[in-house]
Amino acid sequence: MPLTSPLPLTDLAHRIEAIFRKGGLNAVQAGALARVVAAGERDACKSHGIYRIEGCLRTIKAGKVVATAEPVLVEQPGSAIIRIDAQGGFANPAFELGLPHLVARARELGFAAMVINDCVHFSALWPEVEALTAEGLAGLVMCPSYASVAPTGGKEPLLGTNPIAFGWPRADASPYVFDFATSVAARGEIELHRRAGKPLPEGWALDAEGQPTTDPVAALAGAMLPFGGHKGSAIGTMVELLAGVMIGDLTSPEALAELGTTALAPKHGELILAFSPEHFAKGRAGDPLARAEVLFEAIVGQGARLPSQRRFAARAVSERDGVSLNAAELEQLDRLLAGGLDAVEWP
Amino acid sequence: MPLTSPLPLTDLAHRIEAIFRKGGLNAVQAGALARVVAAGERDACKSHGIYRIEGCLRTIKAGKVVATAEPVLVEQPGSAIIRIDAQGGFANPAFELGLPHLVARARELGFAAMVINDCVHFSALWPEVEALTAEGLAGLVMCPSYASVAPTGGKEPLLGTNPIAFGWPRADASPYVFDFATSVAARGEIELHRRAGKPLPEGWALDAEGQPTTDPVAALAGAMLPFGGHKGSAIGTMVELLAGVMIGDLTSPEALAELGTTALAPKHGELILAFSPEHFAKGRAGDPLARAEVLFEAIVGQGARLPSQRRFAARAVSERDGVSLNAAELEQLDRLLAGGLDAVEWP
Repeated sequence: MPLTSPLPLTDLAHRIEAIFRKGGLNAVQAGALARVVAAGERDACKSHGIYRIEGCLRTIKAGKVVATAEPVLVEQPGSAIIRIDAQGGFANPAFELGLPHLVARARELGFAAMVINDCVHFSALWPEVEALTAEGLAGLVMCPSYASVAPTGGKEPLLGTNPIAFGWPRADASPYVFDFATSVAARGEIELHRRAGKPLPEGWALDAEGQPTTDPVAALAGAMLPFGGHKGSAIGTMVELLAGVMIGDLTSPEALAELGTTALAPKHGELILAFSPEHFAKGRAGDPLARAEVLFEAIVGQGARLPSQRRFAARAVSERDGVSLNAAELEQLDRLLAGGLDAVEWP
Repeated sequence: MPLTSPLPLTDLAHRIEAIFRKGGLNAVQAGALARVVAAGERDACKSHGIYRIEGCLRTIKAGKVVATAEPVLVEQPGSAIIRIDAQGGFANPAFELGLPHLVARARELGFAAMVINDCVHFSALWPEVEALTAEGLAGLVMCPSYASVAPTGGKEPLLGTNPIAFGWPRADASPYVFDFATSVAARGEIELHRRAGKPLPEGWALDAEGQPTTDPVAALAGAMLPFGGHKGSAIGTMVELLAGVMIGDLTSPEALAELGTTALAPKHGELILAFSPEHFAKGRAGDPLARAEVLFEAIVGQGARLPSQRRFAARAVSERDGVSLNAAELEQLDRLLAGGLDAVEWP
């Protein structure tokens, strides 16, 4: 039956899951992917919504992800590290498998880490962070991507856009969550400038010769720049070290070399740190969750915004009214469900 | 005996320790402080070198630090968290007390955290980070300071300059280390512009009405801005949450309220995370330390610099030739040793 808009959230998630099943993913992969894609659309985070479905299918079609992978928990007794081998599948089902183990370990030890190895990654990191805040834990999550950012002072793509996300639980409000690329802009934003024929702001990118450019075409052939100058460059490098080499997985240059293109989802690892505020504050005066609210009130009280508030506002609307999709989007979902991998269009 | 320049490193450290003893610090406080101040001077990191001695003495004289504090390990069996109660003394002896416990726990569990509570803080964070890299561990360290930075979109000082530091061990080279404020500039840099009568670069500060300003006097009466716009603002907020409220210690606005001035060293906590690359990479192909070198070579190979290289170069010179001090600095050391707290000048 063709879809109509607005669409109840569960219907959207089921349709996306059915598309991924048709595309060859097994149940564990398709279910986990459908949940994060539907969550992106629910939050009006279009860059991580249904727009991503076709990219995932392309990655499957190109043979760059193990569509039938079953993630595996690698036992490391007595360790604060929960390791999940994604077996070449997507990161999301691996995270879902590891989550209860991570939560239990963080509650037991005060904090713990989840390492995901050998995963294909395309999603935002806030779903991971919010899964932790929903359990009353704080979370810090990071992963490489593929070489597209020059280190400050350099000339060539080396670092990834290396997202970093953080979340803090709130009892009576949506959690405090940020999730951003360590590049000054996302690659998609440069692409949007190219399509619109608009110059880039200064400081976003270098051309292929390593010179600053505001030409989006030259930028796409060159390198993006880190946010915040040398400080962002250092943070991006830290992500390569902690969530690449330290966890025994690919760095961004290695991920690009392995994949050979920036048009498909890259394969690398992911690092998730979970903190128990209850443990960390043990024996100290004051409830950390209540004290955090004082800080949030002071931020909002002077006219600044908390990150992710737009996303949470969109979520409230979607949960009440369903998700609004336009005709082209509805047609795309119908086409992909009917045609599977045969219906995939190359960009 | 008056000092002459250049000064062997150990002589400098002993002189600083003697000054702190004369100023009323007990042996454990004076020794730890002298080591970090001497290390700052050794690394030509003048902003954290002997320049800081008088500020510490002022904090003692003002009764804002417990000069005879003996830090205490708070037992938390079965936890990944090592908690040190600084007992109102400086952070540095607390860190020294906790370090072997943190290293042992990180080696056992794969990673671990040290929380320092109730400490007075004035030093850079790279000494902590380098103490971990010297043990073959990676480290991530952060602490609040006092309210001086407006959140992006806000108007008033709320966040601290909230430093964040990271280190990665290297077998045959100085470690990869960064250590920076999450404000776009340090408060001292604004003060230097004021003294020089020079306008600030755009984007550094707001005046007391919350409007952007390039006037250093107006900026000192207003608020500094975070580095990297909303991303740096989010990271600064994360530091308040993790290294303030989560560890049951003061946030930057609370630290300022407690101290009542920005002219003395603030009291708050500190959070140190230690990661064992050996544990995190267990069972995976490749040695993480060797793989990190490939990344560093690629950074340096395209003309970019690794952070802290200037500091390490200065260190090599100091270790070979001693530390060069000018006549005013030598005179200051003599004056403070002779006069103790009575010799302290107010700025």
